[in-house]
Amino acid sequence: MNRSPRILITGVSGFVGQHYLDYLGQVHFSGEVLGLDSGTTATNRADPAFAFETRPLNLLEKGSLESVLAVFRPTQVVHLASISSVAVSWRSPQESFLNNTNIFLNLLEGLRATGQNCRVLSVGSSEEYGRIRPDQLPLREDSALTPESPYAVARVAQEHLSRVYVEGYNMQIVMTRSFNHFGPGQRDQFVVASFVKQFALAKLGGRQQVTLQVGNTGVVRDFLDVRDVVKAYYLLLERGKVGQSYNVCSGNGVSLAHILDILSDLTGLSYEVQVDHALLRPNELPVIYGSNEKLRTEVGWSRSMTLETTLQDTLESWLKVLP
Amino acid sequence: MNRSPRILITGVSGFVGQHYLDYLGQVHFSGEVLGLDSGTTATNRADPAFAFETRPLNLLEKGSLESVLAVFRPTQVVHLASISSVAVSWRSPQESFLNNTNIFLNLLEGLRATGQNCRVLSVGSSEEYGRIRPDQLPLREDSALTPESPYAVARVAQEHLSRVYVEGYNMQIVMTRSFNHFGPGQRDQFVVASFVKQFALAKLGGRQQVTLQVGNTGVVRDFLDVRDVVKAYYLLLERGKVGQSYNVCSGNGVSLAHILDILSDLTGLSYEVQVDHALLRPNELPVIYGSNEKLRTEVGWSRSMTLETTLQDTLESWLKVLP
Repeated sequence: MNRSPRILITGVSGFVGQHYLDYLGQVHFSGEVLGLDSGTTATNRADPAFAFETRPLNLLEKGSLESVLAVFRPTQVVHLASISSVAVSWRSPQESFLNNTNIFLNLLEGLRATGQNCRVLSVGSSEEYGRIRPDQLPLREDSALTPESPYAVARVAQEHLSRVYVEGYNMQIVMTRSFNHFGPGQRDQFVVASFVKQFALAKLGGRQQVTLQVGNTGVVRDFLDVRDVVKAYYLLLERGKVGQSYNVCSGNGVSLAHILDILSDLTGLSYEVQVDHALLRPNELPVIYGSNEKLRTEVGWSRSMTLETTLQDTLESWLKVLP
Repeated sequence: MNRSPRILITGVSGFVGQHYLDYLGQVHFSGEVLGLDSGTTATNRADPAFAFETRPLNLLEKGSLESVLAVFRPTQVVHLASISSVAVSWRSPQESFLNNTNIFLNLLEGLRATGQNCRVLSVGSSEEYGRIRPDQLPLREDSALTPESPYAVARVAQEHLSRVYVEGYNMQIVMTRSFNHFGPGQRDQFVVASFVKQFALAKLGGRQQVTLQVGNTGVVRDFLDVRDVVKAYYLLLERGKVGQSYNVCSGNGVSLAHILDILSDLTGLSYEVQVDHALLRPNELPVIYGSNEKLRTEVGWSRSMTLETTLQDTLESWLKVLP
């Protein structure tokens, strides 16, 4: 019996999950997709090219997870479920740990218990690098990991577990260290989404100027369009080397101030910033960006979206959903 | 109100916990000790020099743990609770993770929630080093950590969390990477204890020769008497630098074959070995030993027991408890 390819996506109703589904449509994926999420998933997708179903599931519940795996028998797992906020990890480190490392371990054990050896994408974070020196930029995959938050520790543990399961149980896991990503559909708790939303509100309100409460707009980060991120994930699942970690990043450092300037150009609105000291983080690293050379050379990924395109599309998406 | 010093010991009924209590007696500790353990603790200690109480507690139960911490208000925490077996971690990785990383995180959060800033000893393992090259020997604290088992991953995460809590919350945590330890009272699931027990049984049975089922007796490890281990822990709690990791080890590599030779000398019994293939581990590293220079120079620790003394004392302890 040669069943069609079956992709399991955890955290499917999140920002990246939704774009992953879009990407599967674009590449004319024609198998089955099962999406899992912790809450009731409000995923309405009209006329998908592939069979698609969602199910609420707490990944900490081993038994339920094993049942799902035993029935669905995925050929690929895209593990996106995570509480991926550094700030939340400082407030609720146990929740952060459970919803990163422990759920991932449950997933691996579920696959092992049900005798499956599918390809698994383990999503990690640039936060794993932690405290870095300027001479380490751009960050490469062989840079030391010195995690600096409970979230980052949990992600490093997840990556170590991935390698241990590849070596000890011959599982087929490919790991990422994903840098900042943004684009249409991201909630405004993330800084760039919040900026874009405020420009969109000003535009809709007929104002000429935006006033933003900001932290340090001088910080430089590596931003990648979420659509380029899901393309990378798809290619890594297809062609990435098991047991290897890949930076998923643009390769460029961009300051938040530069993003504000682009938004000003796109909207024709001027802006002023007011520093909110609650948004300043002590010991925040001034500059972080990575090298995507390994991703490009080993799986043939390339970036499709410019910073401007992403900001334009995100702006349009906010203009559509705002009242 | 100037209360006396109060030491909380988790995992108190284990091998190391019992020796820690002995050591507190030897140094005439005169405060209060509260011992916690997961099961019903069978700790009978006659006439201790200090106030001593034990309580069964599952460290995964946050509420119970917080209550204990709020009432006892420790001035030091000796965190010995752990499922510290690599083999168990391969069979039950989730249990291993919960009973290393997650219980430690609960402990730290309990201390934070109840507003305490006592000194904490976080016990780690030489397993954290993982895959090492011969030119890295003796292992020093700045050697890379490449954990190779679920247990080792959990211990690395515990150490990372320690550093993050020191830097992020100003907690006073000192970390160890403890190598193999042995001595009177260790259960025979550990290889040296098993050897000694078998020599003791042969001696009691009036036999001239011992036949042992062994794995690879050529492997070289770093063995330290548990009484030297608890001395190191005591000194690290008194004087170790917070946020720092210390090897706790003898500094010497000793083969299992050499230990068998010493046991043969001590008992006057000859021995033969039969290789049990179930005891051979694939990819077992042939030689592991560490440097204890940091421990010696920074806290003034020195080794008190020779290998021969430890084996002699362990032998006598088995001769006493065996029928």
